[in-house]
Parts: sequence; C-alpha cells; structure tokens
Amino acid sequence: MTTAPAQSYRYVLMETDGPIAYVTMNRPEKRNALSVDHMQELIACFTAIGERQDVAVVILRGNGPAFCSGHDLREMVGGDPAFYRHVFDVCTRLMETIQGIPQPVIAQVHGIATAAGCQLVATCDLVVAAEDARFATPGVKIGLFCSTPMVALSRVVGQKKALEMLLTGEPISASEAQAAGLVNRVVPADRLADETRALAEKIAAASGFVVGIGKQAFYRQLEMAQPQAYAYAKEVMSLNALAADAQEGMCAFLEKRVPEWKNR
Amino acid sequence: MTTAPAQSYRYVLMETDGPIAYVTMNRPEKRNALSVDHMQELIACFTAIGERQDVAVVILRGNGPAFCSGHDLREMVGGDPAFYRHVFDVCTRLMETIQGIPQPVIAQVHGIATAAGCQLVATCDLVVAAEDARFATPGVKIGLFCSTPMVALSRVVGQKKALEMLLTGEPISASEAQAAGLVNRVVPADRLADETRALAEKIAAASGFVVGIGKQAFYRQLEMAQPQAYAYAKEVMSLNALAADAQEGMCAFLEKRVPEWKNR
Amino acid sequence: MTTAPAQSYRYVLMETDGPIAYVTMNRPEKRNALSVDHMQELIACFTAIGERQDVAVVILRGNGPAFCSGHDLREMVGGDPAFYRHVFDVCTRLMETIQGIPQPVIAQVHGIATAAGCQLVATCDLVVAAEDARFATPGVKIGLFCSTPMVALSRVVGQKKALEMLLTGEPISASEAQAAGLVNRVVPADRLADETRALAEKIAAASGFVVGIGKQAFYRQLEMAQPQAYAYAKEVMSLNALAADAQEGMCAFLEKRVPEWKNR
Repeated sequence: MTTAPAQSYRYVLMETDGPIAYVTMNRPEKRNALSVDHMQELIACFTAIGERQDVAVVILRGNGPAFCSGHDLREMVGGDPAFYRHVFDVCTRLMETIQGIPQPVIAQVHGIATAAGCQLVATCDLVVAAEDARFATPGVKIGLFCSTPMVALSRVVGQKKALEMLLTGEPISASEAQAAGLVNRVVPADRLADETRALAEKIAAASGFVVGIGKQAFYRQLEMAQPQAYAYAKEVMSLNALAADAQEGMCAFLEKRVPEWKNR
Repeated sequence: MTTAPAQSYRYVLMETDGPIAYVTMNRPEKRNALSVDHMQELIACFTAIGERQDVAVVILRGNGPAFCSGHDLREMVGGDPAFYRHVFDVCTRLMETIQGIPQPVIAQVHGIATAAGCQLVATCDLVVAAEDARFATPGVKIGLFCSTPMVALSRVVGQKKALEMLLTGEPISASEAQAAGLVNRVVPADRLADETRALAEKIAAASGFVVGIGKQAFYRQLEMAQPQAYAYAKEVMSLNALAADAQEGMCAFLEKRVPEWKNR
Repeated sequence: MTTAPAQSYRYVLMETDGPIAYVTMNRPEKRNALSVDHMQELIACFTAIGERQDVAVVILRGNGPAFCSGHDLREMVGGDPAFYRHVFDVCTRLMETIQGIPQPVIAQVHGIATAAGCQLVATCDLVVAAEDARFATPGVKIGLFCSTPMVALSRVVGQKKALEMLLTGEPISASEAQAAGLVNRVVPADRLADETRALAEKIAAASGFVVGIGKQAFYRQLEMAQPQAYAYAKEVMSLNALAADAQEGMCAFLEKRVPEWKNR
C-alpha cells in the first residue's frame, strides 16, 4: 500500500494501491459491528471514492476475526422509534451508496458475515469468500427479523434458500453460498487477498468510464420489465458506442493491439 | 399427535403436535387430486390455522402413494367457462392463503408432485423432499398448459428450467429440484417425516410474532423495485425493533441466556 | 432435410424437417457476426416461421466454428448516433421476435456465443450446448459494455454471476453456464444435433396451439407482480381448458390413449 489514507476515519481504513482502493472495517474487537457512526463513516468513505477518477475498483474487507457481524446490538437495545428509523435509514443509505458509486465493489469475506454484514455481502457487486467463511441472517433468533438484509438477500439468492436462511437463522458455508448465488468465488483462506486482488485487477484493466456506465445500467434495468429495460439499455449502449473509449476499444480489437483508454 | 382435529373435513386431516400443525391431503385413492371441494377444505383449514396463536409452523403432506397429482381431471372434463374460472379462482386462493397466513408452511413431499401439486410445492415457504420424489408440470401433454402453476414455478426456479419443465412436461428428480431452487432439502424416504419435523422445530423456537412479521414482509418486498422494498422494509424492521420480543431477544443475546418470548 | 428453403436469405438458411424448422446463421467466415443485414434477415425468418401452422419448434444454430460472435465490429466503428440507435433497435427487435413467436426456439450452441451472441442464447426459450461451448459478454474489454445483452442475461442468471461476466468479460464454460441457469443441457459435441433434435421432438408431440398459449403467457406473467400474474394466468388457463385440444387431451389421458390434436 503506497498511498496514505485519503481521509481519516475512526472505524474505517481507506488505502489505495494503484487503481484499487481498500476499504477496511476496523472495529475488530466488535467483529466490525455496524454502529451508526461506523455506517456513517463507510458512507462518507464510499462517497469520496465515488468521486475519484483514479480509483477503478474497491475491495471491502474487515479487520479481525470476522468480516462483519451486523448491527451493534449494544446500541440497539432500548432505542426509541426515531432512533430505529435512523439506524435503518443510515443502513439503507450505505447499501445504496455501494451500488450507486461508479466503481465495482468486491467484498473480500472471511469469518462470519451475519445480518447487516450478510446484507453488505449481498449488496457488493462481486464477492470472493474464504473457504471457512459463513453467512447468516440470524435476526429471527433474537426477535428482530432480518427484514432489511432480506431485501438484498432475496434479490441474489432464490426464494426457498432466502426463506430458509431468514426463517431458521442458520449459517450457510461458503460453498453453499456460492451454489446459492451469493458468492462468486470460494478460495483457500491464505489465497483470499491475492485472488480478490486478481479479480479487481482484471476489472481495472478496462476503461473506468465504461465500467461505470455498465454498473449503473445494470441496477437500473434490473428493476424494469423487459421491454422498458431494453428501451433504456438501447440508449445507454448507443451513447456508449459514441464514446472515445468505445471507438478506441473496437479499433484496437480489429487491429489486434492493446487499447489505450482516454477515460481511465 | 396429541390434539384432536380442530375441525372435521372430508378430504383433509388437521392435527397438531405441540406448536406444529399437520395438514394432510387425504384422498389417497385419487393421489390427492385437487377437486374444488378438496381445495375449499384446504383453504378453510389453512385459514383457521392462520388465526391460531398456538400454531407456530405448518407441515403440508399427502396420504397414500403421492404428495399431490394436481387438479382432478374427472371433474375438469366438459366444464363450462364459469366452472373453469371457478376452479382456477379457488386454486389461486389456496396458494395465496398458504403464503398469506403468518406461520411458515413446509411441504413434506414424497412420490409425485405434479401440475397444481407442483404449484403447491413452489408455493409453500420451505420444502423437504424424499429422494424418490418427482416434480412435473405436465399439462402440455394433455392439452392444458400449466399456466397457473407456472406463476409459482417461475418465481422459484430460473427461466430456462421453468420453460423446460413447462414445455416438455417431463418430471425432474428431487436432487434436480434442489439444484433448481424448488426444494430446500432432500432426504432418504425413511427420514422424511423426522427431517421435516426437525426443520419445523427449529423455526418454532423463535417468536411466532416475529416470524409472522418476517414472512409477510418477505412476499411483499419481493414484488417491489429495490428502492421501494427498502422504504417498506425499513419501516417493518423499525416497528419490529420496538416490540417486546425484539427487546427481550437482544437482551438475552447480550446476556448469553435463552430468550423468553412474550408473543409465542 | 426434405423441404426446400421457404425463402431465400443471404446470411440465413431456413429449412424444415417435419414439424421442426432449422434457422442457421450462415456467415461462418465472420463467426456469424450480427451485421444489421444479418439481424434483419433473422427477424424476417423468425417472423415468417411464426405464421406457419406446420412448424412446431425452431432450432437456431450457426455454421462454421462459432455459434455467434455478436455485433459486426467492422460495421460498428465510426458510426453516427443514428446508426448506433438503429443497430440496437434492430437487435432488440430480433430478441423480441424470438420470444414473441408462438413456437419454442431452442439454441443449439457450439463454439463461442459472445456479446449479442450470448444474448441470443439467453433469449432463446431453451438451450442445448456442446461441452466445449463458451459464453461471454466481453464488451467491457473493447470499451463497449454489453448493456443490451445484459437485459437478457440478467433475467436468466443470478445477479452476481451476471455482474462477473459483464465486469470481467471472461468466458464461462458450458457446465458453468448450466449451473448458472443459462443452459438447459450440456452434451458431447458429436451428440449436439441429435440431443437438440430429441428435445425439439418431445415438444413437437404436444398441441402447437397449446404450446403457443403457454409460451406467450410465460413471458407476460413473468413481468407482473404475483397477484397480477395469477389474475392473468387464471384467464389464460380457463380459456385453454375450453379449447378442443384440452378436452381431447384430458379425455385421452383418462381413457389411457394417445391424444389426437385438432390444432397442430
């Protein structure tokens, strides 16, 4: 890591290494529990990254024994209605920020990812997990059904699997998570950082401008009925084709050379 | 089974054993075909269960060689338009009732589950299947495309798999059904009742009030675009957090003790 | 193949063999790249087939080393805005035509299916692939994100898998494509034609009228929230039940004989 933290946070570390930014949840003694302050810092950090032209891909990871254990229960007990609305507002804003910035965000998951921690995993664009990682939405066991994690989870895994996780609260393994569609790649724990980085570098080789167009269009069109999705995607792709990087990319391909992107 | 049937039906048995209700389709000589009368009884039975505070989970199963073979063809031949509309109205109401009651419904599947019987499986919240169970939407073979089963099936399995089942009418095995997302667990036939019960008991350990909140929210948010789903789920989860069972559950977790639910 | 081509095309071959039509992309030297003219011919060919009562199933395949390599890049470089809008309009119309005709369309895939070629695969109702087939949405590598292929791809495979293919541009194997839900069957290359044909014949044994009802209803109901989907599917199925082929099919089943369809 060559670059100093761009901004200083209490619970979050932000470093860059070339075109790749590392966002590290850094409350290891709390298994990276998502207190409101922690979530606010993550929002600030991802928002700042979203405005940086020099960052192509983001890797989200956790310090300590866990990726993320969800909301901070000590903070959650005995709250009033306004507090709970605030907690879930901020949490939802965090998830929307991750999907809203132009750069792909890859979750690098070790240990447990539970409740809102599992929601983070379901929300990141791509997920690489260590073989020993475990995923759960255990809210039902403590009387607080994982209703907001459910929104993200039920959009990436099938109905039956989502309901099983939500209704039983039982964890699933990394390989089950991969079979269910929650995880892209499962790797040995000692290969986790390298494999996540390799995936990030593959994406970072593309035009960041074009990747940003694609990521935004992906989530927009997914919410639409197919005819509307096509009407929208046609416009996106027509505009993309006019861009300098598309013209350069097509020419480079036809000329069998490496493209030189203008909009990194 | 310690409790006597709560109501007497002709084609349906209803028993309870602790917090678990068993709804048994009982037309074994007809492979539990869903005549209009049979479906009306199932609707009445599930509706009555939905109002019972002492039932936490429901297991749906079939007596005889099959789970359920779908609509009763002897009743279906030669009907007039009003009759067919009535049949599919009642059938749809049955499916909506199963997903509409607060308690999770687990299908315990052995033998065949075909046409509207496969729709029942796709509609139940969770599914445990015997290794020899088979699933099909064979309507195309008798000139009556499984259009209403398709609604349930295409929401739990992928497009290509759903179309293959619908266009060929060919059965799939329990393990194929699991890979496709239609089934949660596949177990040896002689373990089917015990494994289904074990899954039910796991869910029955939670607050029934909280499970009911979660089940209802699951199906509601699934129909919404993600921003609306989050707006809705935030409210659900904020209200849930204020409930006595959430406060008790969070405190019990922090104090490392078993929670005592107020709203069983 | 006994029937002469119904119409003569420059880039497309159309043959029929019994109730099965073969549409063959025939620009082998261009790996069946989808120039505007090629797409227009495919639209004309599928539209003509859609009006034929004697065709029950369509098989789409490619001549030469590849199934289809996507848009024709030589044609795409240096276009003006109107041209790009025209390209993606025509491409979208092709996809909508394939899903809009009453007959099921089976993609018979060998070699590569990339970009709009992968979109063709995702769009066909069913897919049989040779073991060595490979699928990719590599637009990101040439600065032109596969935004319109994404519409089809993200409706048949899960979010994480779709994003991985779109963001990395890397190909997946036939078995990965099957696990992801993009492919129905993977077979040895020397069995590809026979297995695809066997699947087509299975579907061709049904009433074409009933299959057409089912295919249309499948895509319509998929876009609806579940309550609307049921309201629609109930009407479709009630009308289907009144049709002569449904009455014949149900009677034949009860009488344990082979049905004789009136509406082939």
